[in-house]
Formats: sequence, C-alpha cells, structure tokens
Amino acid sequence: MTTPFFQPVSGIDLPRFAGVPTFMRLPHLTPNDPAYTDVQMGLVGIPWDSGTTNRPGARHGPRMLRDLSTMIRAGNPVTGINPFTIVNCADLGDISPNPVDIMDCMERITTFYTDLKNRGITPMTAGGDHLSTLPVLRALASDSPVGLIQFDSHTDLFDSYFGGNKFTHGTPFRRAIEEGLVDPKRMVQIGIRGTAYNSEDVEWGEAQGVRIIRIEEYFDRGIKDVMSEARKIVGSRPTYCTFDIDFVDPAYAPGTGTPEIGGPTSFQAQQTIRELSGINLIGADLVEVSPPFDPSGTTAWLGASLMFELMCVLSQAIKAE
Amino acid sequence: MTTPFFQPVSGIDLPRFAGVPTFMRLPHLTPNDPAYTDVQMGLVGIPWDSGTTNRPGARHGPRMLRDLSTMIRAGNPVTGINPFTIVNCADLGDISPNPVDIMDCMERITTFYTDLKNRGITPMTAGGDHLSTLPVLRALASDSPVGLIQFDSHTDLFDSYFGGNKFTHGTPFRRAIEEGLVDPKRMVQIGIRGTAYNSEDVEWGEAQGVRIIRIEEYFDRGIKDVMSEARKIVGSRPTYCTFDIDFVDPAYAPGTGTPEIGGPTSFQAQQTIRELSGINLIGADLVEVSPPFDPSGTTAWLGASLMFELMCVLSQAIKAE
Amino acid sequence: MTTPFFQPVSGIDLPRFAGVPTFMRLPHLTPNDPAYTDVQMGLVGIPWDSGTTNRPGARHGPRMLRDLSTMIRAGNPVTGINPFTIVNCADLGDISPNPVDIMDCMERITTFYTDLKNRGITPMTAGGDHLSTLPVLRALASDSPVGLIQFDSHTDLFDSYFGGNKFTHGTPFRRAIEEGLVDPKRMVQIGIRGTAYNSEDVEWGEAQGVRIIRIEEYFDRGIKDVMSEARKIVGSRPTYCTFDIDFVDPAYAPGTGTPEIGGPTSFQAQQTIRELSGINLIGADLVEVSPPFDPSGTTAWLGASLMFELMCVLSQAIKAE
Amino acid sequence: MTTPFFQPVSGIDLPRFAGVPTFMRLPHLTPNDPAYTDVQMGLVGIPWDSGTTNRPGARHGPRMLRDLSTMIRAGNPVTGINPFTIVNCADLGDISPNPVDIMDCMERITTFYTDLKNRGITPMTAGGDHLSTLPVLRALASDSPVGLIQFDSHTDLFDSYFGGNKFTHGTPFRRAIEEGLVDPKRMVQIGIRGTAYNSEDVEWGEAQGVRIIRIEEYFDRGIKDVMSEARKIVGSRPTYCTFDIDFVDPAYAPGTGTPEIGGPTSFQAQQTIRELSGINLIGADLVEVSPPFDPSGTTAWLGASLMFELMCVLSQAIKAE
Amino acid sequence: MTTPFFQPVSGIDLPRFAGVPTFMRLPHLTPNDPAYTDVQMGLVGIPWDSGTTNRPGARHGPRMLRDLSTMIRAGNPVTGINPFTIVNCADLGDISPNPVDIMDCMERITTFYTDLKNRGITPMTAGGDHLSTLPVLRALASDSPVGLIQFDSHTDLFDSYFGGNKFTHGTPFRRAIEEGLVDPKRMVQIGIRGTAYNSEDVEWGEAQGVRIIRIEEYFDRGIKDVMSEARKIVGSRPTYCTFDIDFVDPAYAPGTGTPEIGGPTSFQAQQTIRELSGINLIGADLVEVSPPFDPSGTTAWLGASLMFELMCVLSQAIKAE
Amino acid sequence: MTTPFFQPVSGIDLPRFAGVPTFMRLPHLTPNDPAYTDVQMGLVGIPWDSGTTNRPGARHGPRMLRDLSTMIRAGNPVTGINPFTIVNCADLGDISPNPVDIMDCMERITTFYTDLKNRGITPMTAGGDHLSTLPVLRALASDSPVGLIQFDSHTDLFDSYFGGNKFTHGTPFRRAIEEGLVDPKRMVQIGIRGTAYNSEDVEWGEAQGVRIIRIEEYFDRGIKDVMSEARKIVGSRPTYCTFDIDFVDPAYAPGTGTPEIGGPTSFQAQQTIRELSGINLIGADLVEVSPPFDPSGTTAWLGASLMFELMCVLSQAIKAE
Repeated sequence: MTTPFFQPVSGIDLPRFAGVPTFMRLPHLTPNDPAYTDVQMGLVGIPWDSGTTNRPGARHGPRMLRDLSTMIRAGNPVTGINPFTIVNCADLGDISPNPVDIMDCMERITTFYTDLKNRGITPMTAGGDHLSTLPVLRALASDSPVGLIQFDSHTDLFDSYFGGNKFTHGTPFRRAIEEGLVDPKRMVQIGIRGTAYNSEDVEWGEAQGVRIIRIEEYFDRGIKDVMSEARKIVGSRPTYCTFDIDFVDPAYAPGTGTPEIGGPTSFQAQQTIRELSGINLIGADLVEVSPPFDPSGTTAWLGASLMFELMCVLSQAIKAE
Repeated sequence: MTTPFFQPVSGIDLPRFAGVPTFMRLPHLTPNDPAYTDVQMGLVGIPWDSGTTNRPGARHGPRMLRDLSTMIRAGNPVTGINPFTIVNCADLGDISPNPVDIMDCMERITTFYTDLKNRGITPMTAGGDHLSTLPVLRALASDSPVGLIQFDSHTDLFDSYFGGNKFTHGTPFRRAIEEGLVDPKRMVQIGIRGTAYNSEDVEWGEAQGVRIIRIEEYFDRGIKDVMSEARKIVGSRPTYCTFDIDFVDPAYAPGTGTPEIGGPTSFQAQQTIRELSGINLIGADLVEVSPPFDPSGTTAWLGASLMFELMCVLSQAIKAE
Repeated sequence: MTTPFFQPVSGIDLPRFAGVPTFMRLPHLTPNDPAYTDVQMGLVGIPWDSGTTNRPGARHGPRMLRDLSTMIRAGNPVTGINPFTIVNCADLGDISPNPVDIMDCMERITTFYTDLKNRGITPMTAGGDHLSTLPVLRALASDSPVGLIQFDSHTDLFDSYFGGNKFTHGTPFRRAIEEGLVDPKRMVQIGIRGTAYNSEDVEWGEAQGVRIIRIEEYFDRGIKDVMSEARKIVGSRPTYCTFDIDFVDPAYAPGTGTPEIGGPTSFQAQQTIRELSGINLIGADLVEVSPPFDPSGTTAWLGASLMFELMCVLSQAIKAE
Repeated sequence: MTTPFFQPVSGIDLPRFAGVPTFMRLPHLTPNDPAYTDVQMGLVGIPWDSGTTNRPGARHGPRMLRDLSTMIRAGNPVTGINPFTIVNCADLGDISPNPVDIMDCMERITTFYTDLKNRGITPMTAGGDHLSTLPVLRALASDSPVGLIQFDSHTDLFDSYFGGNKFTHGTPFRRAIEEGLVDPKRMVQIGIRGTAYNSEDVEWGEAQGVRIIRIEEYFDRGIKDVMSEARKIVGSRPTYCTFDIDFVDPAYAPGTGTPEIGGPTSFQAQQTIRELSGINLIGADLVEVSPPFDPSGTTAWLGASLMFELMCVLSQAIKAE
Repeated sequence: MTTPFFQPVSGIDLPRFAGVPTFMRLPHLTPNDPAYTDVQMGLVGIPWDSGTTNRPGARHGPRMLRDLSTMIRAGNPVTGINPFTIVNCADLGDISPNPVDIMDCMERITTFYTDLKNRGITPMTAGGDHLSTLPVLRALASDSPVGLIQFDSHTDLFDSYFGGNKFTHGTPFRRAIEEGLVDPKRMVQIGIRGTAYNSEDVEWGEAQGVRIIRIEEYFDRGIKDVMSEARKIVGSRPTYCTFDIDFVDPAYAPGTGTPEIGGPTSFQAQQTIRELSGINLIGADLVEVSPPFDPSGTTAWLGASLMFELMCVLSQAIKAE
Repeated sequence: MTTPFFQPVSGIDLPRFAGVPTFMRLPHLTPNDPAYTDVQMGLVGIPWDSGTTNRPGARHGPRMLRDLSTMIRAGNPVTGINPFTIVNCADLGDISPNPVDIMDCMERITTFYTDLKNRGITPMTAGGDHLSTLPVLRALASDSPVGLIQFDSHTDLFDSYFGGNKFTHGTPFRRAIEEGLVDPKRMVQIGIRGTAYNSEDVEWGEAQGVRIIRIEEYFDRGIKDVMSEARKIVGSRPTYCTFDIDFVDPAYAPGTGTPEIGGPTSFQAQQTIRELSGINLIGADLVEVSPPFDPSGTTAWLGASLMFELMCVLSQAIKAE
C-alpha cells in the first residue's frame, strides 16, 4: 500500500482548477528530492517535436496533458484498479529538450531514462512526437530487445525523409528494429490506416516479422480477439507499449499533427488498453498530442484519460514483478 | 390541435438566422401575457452555474441553446411526433438567477416552477448546471416523491464538497432523495462512467435502491433492453427526466464542464430518448451545456436537438394525461 | 499508366506544408496549358454559396479543401487503388463564381462543365453549397438523364423558399428532376434525417420514384446491403454521385451550414463510398464544407479524405469506359 | 421623460447573461403591439449579407450584436446622455430577409423602413452588410436627398462587380447618389484607406462633390477638426449616419469581411461619434459585423458599444426636432 | 543579492515550453519547505470567481498566467530592475478556494495572507475576480487602513447586487472602505469608463474622498501627470496596488469578463505601472484574466507581462523598507 | 510598364475567395517556365521554423500569407505606388525545406536565393522563422557585406542556445555579422523591447557598431526622425530589410511565437515602412507569422498588408537601379 504522500490531490478537497498542475495531481519530484528513490512509476514529459515532418506542436503536449490530467480521479471503476494505491507514482517533470538538435536531444532523453532504469522506476511518458520513443527504447532496451505493442494509424517504419534523414517521427521503429532495441517478432502494430505512397514501410516491417493489424481487421475481428493475438505475440517477456493519439479517430482526437479518418472511438480505445492486462510491461508512452490543433482541450483530455488507463495496466505489471 | 400562434416560425418563410432567438422559434411569453394561461409545455432557461465545482460556463447555456434551437424544425420524421401540434408550447424566458447566493437562487427557481405547476404547465428546462434540477424537483415533487430517469456520466450522489458544502452540481440527487423528492426505488441512472476517488456515491445510492447502469452495461445490453428496464423501474407514476449533456461522448459534446470519455454517440442518445415514450413524464431538463467550451456551437446544437427529442416524448405524456 | 507529370508531389520529398496548395498536390492546369488535353479526371472547385438559406461559408470550401488535401498521399491500401496511376488527374482551378447573381453563376458553372464534358474530362468537384450540383448536372446530363446517388442528411427536394425562390441549396434535386437531368427512378438518397416541417419533399420525391433511405434504415440494414440496393437502382448506365458532408455526423464534420445529429462515422463514410465500385460514374462532388464553422480544419480534412475515396471509384469507372 | 416600460433591464437586478437577448435589453415589440406607436427610436436588425463580394457572415450580425448588447448599461458618463430617458427606445426585431434574391430583399427592407418613417420612428439599424444602407435610404430619403456621414475604410462608390452587377456592398453609395437619395455635396466619407486597383470610386465621388477624408488626414488633423468640417458639410438639414465597423482597426474589430489595417482605436471611434452631437440625424446604422470572424465576440461588443454612442447622439437629435 | 535557488529558469538553458509551469519559472514552495522562510515576495494564485456577476472564468486565471509567464525573462531593460536579484521571489501556489461558498472562501484567503503577513512575505497575487482583493486587504490592512491605487475600468464601489448581495466583484472597494481597510482619502482609481445605470458608485466614492480619474482625464493629462497626482494621494505610507486587466483596452485584453472599449494600450499600461516607482507598496494583484474568453492566450501574456512590471516596483519597495 | 501577365487578378473580376491562392494573386512560376526570366521581383515562401526556440508554427506562414494576400489590391493610395506596374512580380513558390536538418535546409535556401541573385531577381520573402534570413543573406551578400534594417522586438544577436547551438531564430544576426554578410556599422535594429536575462546581445551588437533603437526611443522621437537616422546609417549602398511581425504589438499581431507587449500599431508600422523610400534595397522579408496562434487570420492579414508596403518601396528601389 502506498503512502498518502503519493496520492493525487482530491477534487473534493481542492477544486481541480486550483494548484500548480502536475500529472494527475501527483507530487512533482526532482532527483535531489529524497522521495525520488521511493518512486515506482515515474510520469515524465518529453516536450519535443523536432522529428515532425508536417505540423509541429507536440512539444506543447506535456504541459497541456498535465493541465487536463487534473480532472482525473484515482480509481478505475471498471477494472477496479487504482494505480496510486498499488505503486508509488510521481511526476518527475520534463526531460530537458533541445529543439534545435535532434541527435543531442535524443542523447538527453536516453540519459534521463537510463537513470530511471537504473533506479528501477518504470516510466509512463507523455510526448512529444513519435520520435521520442526511440531514445526511450535505447535506455530501456539497452540490455536486450523488448516486445512492442504500438497503437497508431501509421507504421512509422519508413527508412528516411527529405533525401536521407533517418531520424523523424515517421522512422523510429525502423531504427529501433535495426538497432536491436525491439524484437520484430514480438512486435505488433494496431490501427494502421490512411493513404500511402507505397508499401515500403509495411513490406519492410513484415519482412522483419512485425505483425501489422490494419483498422479494418481490428473492427472486423473485434477488440478482444485482436488483443488476445497481441498478447500472444509479445508473450511473457518485457514489453513496451507506445500509444500514438492518432490511433483514435480525429473526431475524438483532432489535436494531432497527422490525423487519419476512420479510427476507433474513445470507448474502443479504453477497451483496447484494458486488454493489455497481464502483459509484462516495462513502460508506456502516449504521444503526438498537439495543443495548437486542440483549442478546446478535448484531445488532451482524451490523452490524459488514456494515460490513466495505461497507468492501470502498468501498475499491475510493476506489482507483478 | 394547437393554434398557429403556438407554432414555431418556419425557416422556409423567415431564414433561421433572422429574428430574436427564442427556444425553437416559439412565442416568448411572460406571466402577464394572456396567452400564458394556454401554455401546456413551457420551455424555461435556468442560466445558473454556481454549483459548479470545476469549469463554469453553464450559466450561458440557455442563451446559446436558444440560438442554436432556431435550426430545429417542427416534426420528428422517425417517431412521427410533432410536439407543437400536440400541445401548446412557448418560451417562458429564464428564471431570474442569483449567481452569488446559492440558497437564494434555489428559492427563486422553486418559486418559478411552483407557479408553473400551479398553472398546469409542464416544464422543459434548459440549464444551467446540474444543481438546477434540485430546486425544480422541490417544486414538482412537493406533494409526493417522483420517479427519476437520469442520463449522465456522473451519479451526482456525493454528500458534500470542499469541507461540507452540501449544494453543488455533484450532490443534487443525494439531496433530492434525502428531501423525499425522488423515490430512490423508482430512480435509474444511465451512462455512469469516469474515474472515481471512491464509490461512496454509488454505494449510498444503491443502498437507497437507486439502479445505476454503467456505460459498459448500456453498451453490452443495448438501448432497447436497458430502457425497457428503466421503464419498469419508474412504472406508471409521475416521473421526471434529467439529461446531463455529458452523458454523450465528448467528441459529440465537448462543450461541458466535466466531460468523460467513452460515451454514446448522438444517434444512440436520440434512440435512447425515444424509448421514454409511454412514461408518465411530468417534466424534463437538459443541463450542463457550457458555451465557453463550445466555440463552434456543436454541443449547443446537439443539446437543442435532444431537447426536441425530449419535447416529443413529453408532449405525448401531456396529451396522455 | 500515367506519367510522372500527373503524380502528386510526395510528402517524403517536399514537406506537406510547403508549396502552393493544389488539390492533392496535383499540377494546376488552365485551359491554355498543353497538358490540359491529357487530363482524364479534373478536380474543380466551385467556391459559391449563394443558394445557402442559413449559415454561409461554403464559398471558402475549395480553398480549405485544397489546403488540407496536401496531407493525402497516393494510394488506397484497403482497395489497392491508386487513382493517380490509373488516370491523369489535375487541379483545374475554380470556376469563376458570381456571388451576387445566382442565375448568372449557374450559367458560368454549366459553361465550365460543358467544356469539360466536350473534352472528355470527368469532373471531381469540391463545393460550394449543394445548389452547385444543379448547374453541373445541366452540363453532364445535357443529352439524357443520369442516375444519381446522393449522400446527405437532407433531401434537397423542396419546391421553393422565402416566398417562391426556386434556386436554393434546399431545392436542386427537385429542379434536376423537373428539368430532366436526373431520372428519378434511378435516383437514391442515403442518410436522410433531421427534423422537418412537413414531408412535402419526401412525398414529392417518392411520387417521382426516388428511393429515400433514411439513416435508421442505413444503420439497421448495414452498409453492404444498402449499397447493394443503391447499385441496383442506378444500374449500369451513367450515374453521378453527390456527397454532402452533412451526411456524416457533426462530431466528425462540424464545419457545415446545416448539420444534423445522428449520422455515420468517418469509417462508415469510407466504407460506403468504397461500395460505389463498379458503378458507371460520370462525375462526383463533395459539397457543403464550410470553413468558418471548421476552425481546426477537421471537416476539411475529412472532406479531402472522402474526395480521395471518391477519386478511387471514379478512376476505376473512367478506366472501365 | 420616458416610462419604465421603455427602460433597459438592469444588470444589477437581472444578471446580464439571463433573459432572451434583445438590443440593449429593451422591450421587443412587433407592429401589432399597442406600445409600438409610442416608440421614438427603433432598433432594427438587417440580417442580410447577399451583397458581400468576399467573406460572408454579416447576416449573423444582428443576433450577435443583440447578445453582446446585453452588457450595455443606460447612461453615457462622458456626455451625460441617457438615450433611454430621452426617447422611447425599443427593439423592433429584424426585417424579414431573403438571402437568395437581392432585389426582393431590398424591397422588403424599404417597405419596413417606409412604415417606420410613416410612424415617425427614427431607425437605429444593426446590419448586415453595407448594401443594407441603400434600401434604408430609399425609405428615409423618399422625399428629398439627405446628407450622409459615412465612417468606413472603403468608399463603396464603385460602379459594378463581376461583369456588371450594380448591387453589392461595394456600390451602395454610387447607387444612392444616382438615385437622388443622398446629396453628394452634403456627403462626407471618413477613414478611407486600403489598397486599390484604381481610383475610379474616388474620382467619381469627388466629381459629384463628395468629401473624402482619408485616414491619414483624419490622424493628422485630429478628430475635432475633421468632425467640425463634417458638421459643416452636412449642415442643419436631415442627415443619415452610416458606420461600417471596418472603420476601426482590425485589432479592435477583427470580425468583419474586409478589414483594412491602419485604422483608429476604439477610443478614437467613441470620440468621433460624440462629435456628431448637434447634427440633424434622421437615422443611423452600424454594419458589417461578421460573427464567423469574431469567435470571441470582441467585435460585436465594440459594435454594441458604438451603437450605444450612436443612440446617444440620435436621441438628442430626436428630442431637438 | 539573491541566491541561484531563487532565480527563474532561463529559456536559453531549458526551452520555455518545458517543465512544470510555475509563475515566472520560479521555485514552487509550500509552507513546510525550509526555503519558504527566505521568501520576500510571494507569487500567489487566487483561482476564484464566485463574485462574478456576469461571465465567469477568472478562476482559471492563475493556471493560464503561470503558463504564459514562462515566457518572461529576468530583467526590465527600461528601468534596469531585475526583481529576482533584488528580493527572493517564489511561487507559493494557490490559495485553496471554495467555489460554492463566498464567505468561507474569503476566510480561507484572509487566513493565507495573514500567514504571509506574519512571515513578512510581500504578496504579488494573480486572480481571480476582483472580489479577491477584499479578503487580501483584510489580511494586509488588519492593523490600519492602507492607501490604494486601483487600475480599472469600473469603480467596483457599488453597494449590492441582485437584491442585497454585498459581496460581488462589483462591490469590494465599498466594503473595504466600510471595513476600514482602505483610507478613502489615500485611494485613487484610474481608467474608469463604460456605460452606467447611475452614478451611485461614483458619488459614494467621492463623498468618502476617493479620487476617481476617468479614462478621458488619463488620456488628456498624460501618464506622468496623472501618476504624479496618484503618488501624492497615497503618500509615503503603506499602499496596495490592484490592477484589473480590464483597465487595458479589449483589443489588448479580450480575455476578461466585463471589458469596456476605449482603454489604454499595452505600452501605456507598462508606462503607467513604472510610475509606481517610489511608492511604499505592501502588495499588488492582477485580476480578472479569464481564459475562456482568451483562446489564444494574448490576455494572459499581457497579464504576465504586467505582473512582471508590478514585481519590479514591488521589489524596489521591499528593498527600500 | 509591366505586361498584363504580371498583374494581380482583380477582385472585381474574380472574387477574392476563388482561385488557387498565390501571393497577391500573381502568376505562380517555376524555373522551367519561360516567363521566369522576366521576373524582377520574386515573392518566395520559406516554410521553415526549425530554428524556433519556443512555440513553432511559422513553417505554415507562407501558405496562410498567400491565402490572406488575395485580399490585397494593386495600388498604394497614400504613396501612389503600384508595384505591379513598376516591375514584373511573380510568386516563385516555396523553397524546398528540410524540417529535420537545419544545416541542410540553410544550404537549400542559399542555393535557391543564389539562383535568384544570378538571374537578377530581387526577393521579397515570406517566412518562416527569423533564422530564415541568415541563408538568404548568405546568397545576397556573397560578394560584400550589406546594410541591414531590422524591425523586431528582439535583437536576435545572441551567441547560442541550449548549450552551444549556434543556429536558432535568436542568433541569425550575430552569425551574419561574424560571417561578414552584414556590415554592423550599416545596421540598425528598431522596436527592441521585452524582458531580458542579460544584455549580452545588446552589448555585443553595440560593440560591433550596430545601432539599436528601443521602442521607447521610437515612440519618443517619432517615426520620421528615427527613420531618417536609419536611412543615414545604411546610406546609399545595398541594404536588406528584415521585418519580424513581432515588431508590431500583439494586439495587432497575436499570431507569432514570441510576442512582446508594448509595440507599435498597424498604422505606425505602415508609416515606418513607407520611410524606407529611397533606400537602395536589394531584398526584404517578413517573418515569424505563425498560423497556429492566429486562428482568425488577423496576423496573416497584417503580414500580407505589410508585405505589400515592402513591395512598394522595393519596386521603387529596383526601378532606381
């Protein structure tokens, strides 16, 4: 059982619009704080979108997610999980980004997450564009490749952009496989859709063994069936979950850089995440929330709500270790 | 058959953007108007949000609902009901709110609705936050407890906020039951979801006999089955219907103070209200539309459309008396 | 196989936010350009909303659709169709509208499309309000009546507005039938819903033989069944497809003048259009996208995505000629 | 002294967000109301923008001006004028517009204002686009030409648009002079600016004797000097004042169809209108407020505030008759 | 000289969009933090708008001001003042508001500020509506009345609203004078404007000795002259400064509940605050920033920039003690 | 005299909302077009914001500037200049940016502008963030240093960001001086303001001989006096003008990444640019318009209007060569 120190501030005591906004109204800790060593799940922001090939803005994601996350309460009435009572959760602040140097910024991120890994803190990340996941994986999978469950409307498996640039938000998982961070045979992508110039990404991925489940298959088979397959693919070994908000239909998530129509509802997104229960999760992220395209905050609210669902399954996995 | 006086102005004669906006383009009547005594269904605004615990704005709801309601026409092609030909409908204006004194404002509301009750006018209310329903029930249920069908993502059954405050938009139905305004055994809540600090509200409600149907059950069983049970619960005696716009998913209803993801679509909301047909309805309200969070007016348009659906079943009930 | 000249600019070469925005990043051609004679499918804007009876703005539709269409890529991974490799596609610019003279503007439109017809160019139009379709049909159906598949929440079959005005966006298909441009027995309307003052439109249409499929029937029977009937109705002879963006639910398409709640999702809209495969299509349009009500561009993005789906089936039809 | 009936509702009694919104919270009267005959100043909306050559939306102006005008109180602390105690003011509703027939709509407007003139009611109009002023002048100047003071960034003196269209919002004052409604020698335009294709408008106007004061001259000479000249130009005979909201800089009035940078502040606009004191005003209008370009309502609030300033000088003129 | 601990984080080291947002990127301290006792100037949020008589939203002001204040740097190049090097500044968080009980919330505020006073911390407050200033003054002026400089477009000197309510954002300074918190002979109001039902507020204030400088006088005499008089009025004894953002013209500050046109520019506001130099300031506040009416954040950015100007003069005053 | 080919399309012929949007409705030419060789002034977009240290979005500037520029007409009634009749102007499209590689993108820009220089085309650029100016200067000043007039609220003279990054939008003019592209003794910065961590930028600039005119001096001395000095500083030799939209006050230009309050009005900006008349201008740019912060397009409209003013003085300079 966790201590009161690690509980979110209740909206019945302090109204939700009051107070400096931290993720889920958790304590904000920096490494020199004594309580830092007690943290089990660290909520971290990666305010960075330098890998974005089209509409930027995801660098503002962590701040807006913090703001809207103050409307989250503590327990999940459907699954019965209250992550805050299971593990010590805290807002560990943002990594220090470098918006004008991609390679430097990736190193900064990897350094931050390597420290978390060394401390035994499981990260729950708020992006940031999808390139953010690559330097996180460099830290978490430094020893051996991990499994990966990716919710997304794009594969992000392209080789390069703009005449050879290898590091963009359209390429992280190609790099991750090439670098041996992810085991492609333990990798599944769910929700893929949208127009395409070619199938280079899909063909390359499938050749490596990645299982790509398009949105049509997701709708046809249903959530339980698809997720059962996903659980089998990743198996019992360590697995990372990356959730691109553009997985959800743009009616629910307009605030993102590269939306694709024809996606799931918010309810389906919730149901899907709950099916991650039982997986040996070593971390998760929610990326691509872009406040400039989200003037009413609906996408950030969806993002915060899905971060909470991810925290529920993540807290179970931490406890199960 | 109603007279031409009580018919909405047609958009084929006068464009919808023209004219002083009243609810559904109905005549606006004040008590000193002779036609006031002929009114059977009174559309009333409660521009009040002083019970709001988080994001205010619902006080502006009635005005924006009036504006968007000018796009409503007269008949329901699905059910075949035209409420304006069944009963005399009119816009009775807004109650005179007091934004800085909750107790005084509740008295003002109760006084207004007691007068309506005495005149035999059935109220169709546009809120306002959900605390608005309590003083309405104090008027309508002054003789004996009524049944209640509540569409909502929250139970609003909490005991108090901020160290003992009993009157907020999170507490009205606890008060209504305690005050004997609602018979908890004839009360059903549909669509409940969202994170929770505890289950105090649910446990207390269920202990009183309230039937709480979470959104998962609503989706699993389907609308017809759930609403059939709801009709059985309230039976044939007088029943009030309160519809919080946050029942609908935030993709459809972003303009509200406390949205919860994972809700029904607008089509499902329409289907659900149509299943109220046959219930002995004595009034209805649609609350929590908050224009500051609804810059494009989509929520107010949804709200006006659902008010029309409520008017259809309400007009049937009035006629059946 | 088409030439590189007629291929959209790739976002992997030139970022999507760069360049003068043309439809789908296609070449922009004017009649005096030599390549104009090679065009098989012409994308044309009709920036005109003078027939609008309520909220104007659709005149700005083509520009915003061009802007958002720069996010479309080239191929449809579900159907396998890449329209740009099947037929030569080009942006032919906008017709020259007259916002202050309806009759003159309709003549301008008909003249433009008659020239396209004479050149053998199949038009894919971006409106504009729904009155735009009438002068297009006057050009395309000048020889003999065509079949019509209309996706819409309104029948647009009224006789007149405001005391006798015959040409508004609520009347085009009554005129089209009266003028012998559309064969009402080969005409189907899908998605009809919303409140109504009377059923004059529906009764007149059904008396002519128009098949009107309300949204309830669409949801009950399912897309495949309904579209199978639609294909039978229009048969193998020339058919035009008109798609009013208000067919889709306002949560997905808020940016339109006369939204009606209770509509399909974006995924359902995609599935529906794909069922047009095999029809002898001679042209298509997507109308009623209204940027002033679409501040975040979500509706224009949906519209551009559905234009792409229409282009896929249209390119098949052109190839099949 | 006016009666309580004609006083605006006080925000100290009824909060400003409550009640059906009428102009300035005045009583809303229709011709069949007995009090109609007592009205001295009639506030009228012209929800019409069919003469707009670029961005439409001014048809929604009257409704939004009514909404924001509920924040106006009763007296002008600077000039000491309370128009509501000087003359009986009322909201006479909107003219019944025809958005799809310019000539018909102009006739409707002229008929409405002829009735007002016959009743001796001085009109204070809320547009609508600037073409609205022409049919108003046809009514008010039916006997003899009037003087005109026009605040605007454009002359609206062009001959025609789009190949010969004589009636647009860029041509009303050419028509008014040609039709003998305005005496060009008693006409002054103030605030003119913006780029121009040619000086056809200016040359024609000056040839007729119109005094055109560009914004540079307005700033150089100062408000008092310029307005002193304006008063001399119109002299003591009947004069109409038309105020296009685009007179004010777009930073203050973004919500209009054709803004021009480099204009006055709101304070300067107030000071300018106050200098109309003493002129024999027979009516005034405020036009071109376009809500779709005014999402936060700041332009409508400016417009309502300037309508109040116009009412102050207009009430003085009525009293002086 | 202050320590590095109390310096704002530099945007040259950590980008401004990164990190948990505190006022001016200062350390966030709670009373149980050892560094709390070293604070000389405490930045405090009062997220509360329950006294608002019209459009609510100021309760969200502190959070948005924190967000935008991250773009403030450290020094004032015009006056040469860097408040962060003069006194220890820190973000002390928000008071714990009660949105549903005005009297309770005022007590909470007074308690918080009494503690600050006892600790010798000078408060720089971010509101909140203008009623917030009353409970602050109850703490700061508990010993003897203070002088007051109020920048505002309204006097806030009314007696009551809605039939006798004494505590609203239109009444705080009447109460403050009545309660002996402010010496009316050492009180000056600057910028007053807007329409008025009566002059009850002005007459009462002037009868007490309050100096009311309307906006016309402010513009006529110029900033230096007016502020010289203001300094004389308050003299050398302790003085509080309250700055209502609606002092500035709505073109610069649209995000507020009760804007009044005809106000100063942002540059004039800066110049005005700088003239407070030399006054014996014991605290200051900036109130009535309302995020729901400020979708682009321009008002919050103005507010944060003016808070910085207030901090400059406040830090001088603290140092001069 | 220019030919009709190089004239903007008139809004009296084709409504401004129609047509593919090019800068000022000029012909869009690519290098392989024969008319390219006749161009004298080339309007070029640099859709790039990778040097942005805070809020991105300026990469979308060129597209929105093109859109709003369709409201510009042809002549400047104040100065009498019609740039389109003086020199052949054309829209040369956008440079091909690389959003993920700063060094590569700068090379692409320099290559594009070197080609323009070789062809004798004078560039009028629409940014993009302020780093864009550096690679432009590398092309234009490849032979010898140029003079520079910079309108801006920031000096952009810092040495580096984020631990040594030399190329950001805060550093371009330090680099330009270091690289010998700009003669610091012929360089003047006007409008500088905003808070500052230190005066490193100012001190370094002044040590090189740069004349820095803060906003206070600009307001105190007046536009004519300041600009007379500026003309003297740059003398008769080739000079470049760079205009950062944040020079103008945020009330007029909210749509930019780093606004600073206390700036000039739009009228003052116009007057200022007109004082560039007579300078030997070899190019100009307008940068930092950021559409995500400009939802109503007011900033882009201001930017397009100021681009027109720059074109007026630039066309004079080209003609004077």
